[in-house]
Amino acid sequence: MKVLVLGAGQLARMMALASKPLNIEVRAYDVGSDQVVDPLSPSVTFGDLDAGIAFADSITAEFEHISHEVLDRCEDSGKLFPSSQSIKTGGDRRLEKSLLEQANVKNATHHVVATKAEFDNALKHLKLPLILKSALAGYDGKGQWRLKDISQADAIWKEVDTFIKEDTSAQQQAVVIEQMVPFDREVSMVGVRDKNGETKSYPLTENHHTNGVLSVSLATGAHANLQAQASEAFDKIANALDYVGVLAIEFFQVGESLLVNEIAPRVHNSGHWTQQGADTCQFENHMRAVSQLPLGSTALVRPTAMINVLGTDSVPNSILSIPSVTMHWYGKSKRAGRKMGHINVSGSDRVELLQRLQQVVSLLPENDFPEVNDYVSQLK
Amino acid sequence: MKVLVLGAGQLARMMALASKPLNIEVRAYDVGSDQVVDPLSPSVTFGDLDAGIAFADSITAEFEHISHEVLDRCEDSGKLFPSSQSIKTGGDRRLEKSLLEQANVKNATHHVVATKAEFDNALKHLKLPLILKSALAGYDGKGQWRLKDISQADAIWKEVDTFIKEDTSAQQQAVVIEQMVPFDREVSMVGVRDKNGETKSYPLTENHHTNGVLSVSLATGAHANLQAQASEAFDKIANALDYVGVLAIEFFQVGESLLVNEIAPRVHNSGHWTQQGADTCQFENHMRAVSQLPLGSTALVRPTAMINVLGTDSVPNSILSIPSVTMHWYGKSKRAGRKMGHINVSGSDRVELLQRLQQVVSLLPENDFPEVNDYVSQLK
Repeated sequence: MKVLVLGAGQLARMMALASKPLNIEVRAYDVGSDQVVDPLSPSVTFGDLDAGIAFADSITAEFEHISHEVLDRCEDSGKLFPSSQSIKTGGDRRLEKSLLEQANVKNATHHVVATKAEFDNALKHLKLPLILKSALAGYDGKGQWRLKDISQADAIWKEVDTFIKEDTSAQQQAVVIEQMVPFDREVSMVGVRDKNGETKSYPLTENHHTNGVLSVSLATGAHANLQAQASEAFDKIANALDYVGVLAIEFFQVGESLLVNEIAPRVHNSGHWTQQGADTCQFENHMRAVSQLPLGSTALVRPTAMINVLGTDSVPNSILSIPSVTMHWYGKSKRAGRKMGHINVSGSDRVELLQRLQQVVSLLPENDFPEVNDYVSQLK
Repeated sequence: MKVLVLGAGQLARMMALASKPLNIEVRAYDVGSDQVVDPLSPSVTFGDLDAGIAFADSITAEFEHISHEVLDRCEDSGKLFPSSQSIKTGGDRRLEKSLLEQANVKNATHHVVATKAEFDNALKHLKLPLILKSALAGYDGKGQWRLKDISQADAIWKEVDTFIKEDTSAQQQAVVIEQMVPFDREVSMVGVRDKNGETKSYPLTENHHTNGVLSVSLATGAHANLQAQASEAFDKIANALDYVGVLAIEFFQVGESLLVNEIAPRVHNSGHWTQQGADTCQFENHMRAVSQLPLGSTALVRPTAMINVLGTDSVPNSILSIPSVTMHWYGKSKRAGRKMGHINVSGSDRVELLQRLQQVVSLLPENDFPEVNDYVSQLK
């Protein structure tokens, strides 16, 4: 079995690591260089996209912001899983919102806005505070504005208008304006669906973001009620897309209710804990799904947390002396804010996990891991 | 960190897979072709042994039958862990037996024999039945004879004498004649020792061999008394060798007592279950030890069994539908009897593990997995 991954970053790398034992050969298409590479040794190249498509039995993607031209060429080969429509939906908040409405899944009240008239109309119908998010290429906190007081409206519109007009993509930029959800917590769910329509979802993950980027995830298997809601939303969304592979859903938790924030049509940072905490990790399950192998169990094996390593290429080796601490470096060169690796920490129950997590965090420099200590300290 | 592994088979491959997330770069020296290769893509080469030695921060080995010339060149670089003496000891039963005596570790009563006079003397002092094992290059049941009745002595000596005289190695072949141990079970232990002398040992593994080759291993964390004996033997042997890395010890269990059968100065087939069943797998712990990183916990996370895949390159995909079944292929071309991969099966306790194991085995063709069904059926 041979799989081409669109994108040659850490997600392709971890898919390749999970694939070797299954005898699935993985190559990755680097959209920047237009070269197919070995995701485990990116200096080894295998030609252009056509060569990659010819090589593959299946094609999949590690990110959603891929040109439609590339997606369409892959779709034409009949090998692309999930479908280009699924990937495009993940890359465009307008399509995403339509999907959620169509699948009857709760999400924040919103308007799609591209003109001043639409903006003014949205302000009339939505309750402050609002959050404006770019329709295209907006993730990890980029292309977002918060409108808390009506006096900010003109200034924000000026910025948004420039942002929209500067965009040159074929799909044309817009913003989705949402009513801010007074959420108690951000949680997410990763799940997997195969070509026969079978779905399996992983335990819900509690997430903490620092400066708009995920910094800590925690899966302990609690929250049976929320788990059932999230699984239902997963099934509705995955079925609506006739999805194949791993799909992630981010939710706002408001009381005992979940609203979908956004979806990601791929393996997801908030599912990295599955490498040590779940029966089958998200990377293996994604490759099983796109390779038509039976899905693996998504059961929790042990409560596990993940800490992102952002913008630094070293952590104290002493954290490896703590039981159940696993380091995952991505082999990338250092750049401010860049996702460089992650640390998984497990325990036999939530109490042991939190003890170990606190130990690990106490050894990590605050400078490189802002807010992480504070967040972990308040976990119960 | 950069590590050269002597040997480019599945053990080097699994070391490389465990090393990627630690940012340890692994290359493998293929002794057959005298080429350094990428163990994850063996067609990618990096020159000869000198190039490999120059590349590495540390050098280690995946097998013990390496020419002393190669070992000595690596040792001279100051980078070889474990030491050449440790590796040579694992490759020569004479040195192994001296080590066990010196470390005061119980093993089978034996004589070393290279001549007819020594053979006759051994027969006088040892009690039948006997097992004769080649001193050099004898593993997986090759180079062994069983002497059950004295009438077989002349015929066996003729074979052994020819075997000894045909050997052209610098160390000169011999046989070790042991009194057969009326063992109840074969068990083994994998453990790890770092440069500071810290040791950690994994839970004992119950093993079943088919035609002299390991076919099934099972680690459930039972047998506290045997575990303590085995850990003590591990510490004695590892300390006597000033060992660095993972070391495996095979034992005969006789009642509540353990006798060492043999040692292997490397990661070991009977430790493959640690990939799914232990807090840190043997491959990662070996790389941690030779790279001077803190050792990881060797605690059992969940009872796990391993089934070897020998001489076949396919198993029914349906086994992947059973929870906690993980496939590990080695990416090798098929050859009769060759170790092609292994299947790990886990359960939350021994009962669940045995249920799943029975399910898996019922789907495996008897032809490709002889004795495995019978062995698994009688496990309690």
